[in-house]
Amino acid sequence: MVTVDFFSSEDVRFPTSKHLDGSDAMNPDPDYSAAYLSFGSQGGEIGHSSVFTIGRGNDVQVAAINSLSHFVLGKNLDNLLDDIGDLYKKMVFDSQLRWLGPDKGVLHMAIGAVVNGLWDLRARREKKPLWELLADMEAQELAGLIDYSYLDGALSFQQALGLFEASQPFRDERKKELRLRGYPAYTTSPGWLGYSDEKLERLAREAIKSGFGRIKLKVGADKSDDIRRLAVARAVCGKDFPIAVDANQRWGVREAIDWISELAKFNPDWVEEPTHPDDVLGHQQIARAVSPIRIATGEHMSGRVMARQLIESGAVGILQIDSSRVAGVNENIAILALAAIKEIPVFPHAGGVGLCEAVQHLAFFDFVAVSGNKENRAIEYVDHLHEHYVDPVRVSNGRYWPTDVPGSSQEMKKESRIDFGFPDGPKWVDSNA
Amino acid sequence: MVTVDFFSSEDVRFPTSKHLDGSDAMNPDPDYSAAYLSFGSQGGEIGHSSVFTIGRGNDVQVAAINSLSHFVLGKNLDNLLDDIGDLYKKMVFDSQLRWLGPDKGVLHMAIGAVVNGLWDLRARREKKPLWELLADMEAQELAGLIDYSYLDGALSFQQALGLFEASQPFRDERKKELRLRGYPAYTTSPGWLGYSDEKLERLAREAIKSGFGRIKLKVGADKSDDIRRLAVARAVCGKDFPIAVDANQRWGVREAIDWISELAKFNPDWVEEPTHPDDVLGHQQIARAVSPIRIATGEHMSGRVMARQLIESGAVGILQIDSSRVAGVNENIAILALAAIKEIPVFPHAGGVGLCEAVQHLAFFDFVAVSGNKENRAIEYVDHLHEHYVDPVRVSNGRYWPTDVPGSSQEMKKESRIDFGFPDGPKWVDSNA
Repeated sequence: MVTVDFFSSEDVRFPTSKHLDGSDAMNPDPDYSAAYLSFGSQGGEIGHSSVFTIGRGNDVQVAAINSLSHFVLGKNLDNLLDDIGDLYKKMVFDSQLRWLGPDKGVLHMAIGAVVNGLWDLRARREKKPLWELLADMEAQELAGLIDYSYLDGALSFQQALGLFEASQPFRDERKKELRLRGYPAYTTSPGWLGYSDEKLERLAREAIKSGFGRIKLKVGADKSDDIRRLAVARAVCGKDFPIAVDANQRWGVREAIDWISELAKFNPDWVEEPTHPDDVLGHQQIARAVSPIRIATGEHMSGRVMARQLIESGAVGILQIDSSRVAGVNENIAILALAAIKEIPVFPHAGGVGLCEAVQHLAFFDFVAVSGNKENRAIEYVDHLHEHYVDPVRVSNGRYWPTDVPGSSQEMKKESRIDFGFPDGPKWVDSNA
Repeated sequence: MVTVDFFSSEDVRFPTSKHLDGSDAMNPDPDYSAAYLSFGSQGGEIGHSSVFTIGRGNDVQVAAINSLSHFVLGKNLDNLLDDIGDLYKKMVFDSQLRWLGPDKGVLHMAIGAVVNGLWDLRARREKKPLWELLADMEAQELAGLIDYSYLDGALSFQQALGLFEASQPFRDERKKELRLRGYPAYTTSPGWLGYSDEKLERLAREAIKSGFGRIKLKVGADKSDDIRRLAVARAVCGKDFPIAVDANQRWGVREAIDWISELAKFNPDWVEEPTHPDDVLGHQQIARAVSPIRIATGEHMSGRVMARQLIESGAVGILQIDSSRVAGVNENIAILALAAIKEIPVFPHAGGVGLCEAVQHLAFFDFVAVSGNKENRAIEYVDHLHEHYVDPVRVSNGRYWPTDVPGSSQEMKKESRIDFGFPDGPKWVDSNA
């Protein structure tokens, strides 16, 4: 029997705001940060996970993670790993903690960190990368990972089981295919709002040369800037190259419809986060008005109840998932299943710090065992901060290549965690000196 | 010039779970708690506010409040009080903090605590109870308190201005009327799920004798229990007495429709929180299916974007507001205005600890200067923990009576805060001994 006797949370922040990496219409100066969790047995097995934030408030996220320590500390790790779905439901339905959401915000993301840490531990124990661990699971076990409450009418255990069973005969072949050809990536690197036209042009050219089949530009702060920048990008990329745009919640509903209509001539592949992420009916209204342009959202989607509504109402043509916004792998499996049933393509949100590393596992799993699709899909990719990870993503020729390293690729190098520890790590102490 | 040089947060918890006060289908054992904030000038003016929670996680809520201290500490209090709307918007749109919501959960409620504390300070300074301070404001200033972003198409500055201007000629008369006749209350005291039928019967009888014109029962855990308990209540109250029921999010959508259909014969005045509070489309579906029974929700509504959707979609026949769930007085004014424009009656959520004290001010203000209505409305009332407040609610003959004490009635007695301080206050140390 292995007992969990170690639980450590860390506030790690990277001073990315200095170079305007990651700048967009709503987030002019993010410091990409991780509320980092490691727990397990001091004797050996340690699981890693984190919640991505963009700076201030990362300490609150750490406090929320700490408030959950009693769910794992002192517990039998074997039991926890045998039924991660059980602990996930216990945490989500802890009535006192539930009051602080429910199913949203800081506490919900903290639950995600604990759940994801358990999955990291289990994948390490079974000596498989997380994507493959999930992809090799029996349909019955996979369907048991989902919490079906509030999904009444949208997803039942039987439906999920059917979905996972249907993929069974194809899984081995798809694993081979994934290893052989990778999974499409798209890049946001050229499109940050703080970049000059010259930098945008240069980076777009480089993106295409590197093999990316799709890029994304930030929009929404100034309409004439957007039109100018999209013209620059179109000139570089050519008429038919997929260029998505992302407004980062900048608009009201009517404003979104007007603005998107003016950008329509550039044929955007999708328009992301046109308005407030909670406004399901607003997204529905926008989607109807700008059709056939596809509306995308999801990186701020708090969980499966919002996903269900976005999908069922036709509010999204593309659903985006985030590895650390919801209550972890289990809730993301529910969301992937909801999307697969309605045939809504999933384009995972990534970037930040550690998000590419984490979400690739979900996308690979989706291809092998859920939707069975990867060609009309792509994982977001941003080329920064990967050097801090023990098992960084492998992206080349515009594709993510699956890792074979056991775990969920969430482990950040110890020295990075020390160097960028906030507020006392050497990188912060020096920069404030 | 007065500078803010004092900012103190406290974790205060009452061990209410011991007596099953407040037990319902989702919350079997709440410990009513306050993440308590006081700030201002050590020389004199101190504002008080709190976020209500039900126990575990109250420490995380306190941490979130602390993360906002820099917005007020060291600032000129006169400037802050002159334009509370400005600070409210600064906090809500702080891009780094916004990532942790946006507009929801622990961080959003923490913003509410700071905003509400400023209103408490301003009301004290102007020597008026908060409800009267707001009710005496010029329409122009009131309309300026609202953040209209994401309300595009639902509420504009001009519409809000029109609403507040329309009330102007009636406000003095309504203030008199309020002081003369009070504001209707309804009570949940008889209906907690943990109570026996005998206790329910006795408390319902007492509620009617005390002058309450409406009671509410918790339902949703067991259908035959609900039917039996509603029969008991109907027998005591008579055929036409308004009895509301509250399922506290227990059901899925189809389950809610079936269950409510079986309770329909008891003619419930409304059915509260039938399903997940984020499920706007689910509430819409339920409301259509069980019409004319009214669906109510709102105590877990994260803010104005959700309120707008619930109202516009016809998902609610009654909107409930909570004083500490959203980003404070300013956001609640937006929600009251949204409801008034669509003529949706507001029945404020209260109970817990400090919620009755806080929310009465919003209801009184709504009557005087927003909806102009109070007879088809009522504020929830639960008779416990009021003794811990410096200016406790005045409820008699089934009505709330307006306070004349300057401030927002949010100040908890110092000795209560010490006694029930968690985990080191004497009441907790003794009970764990």
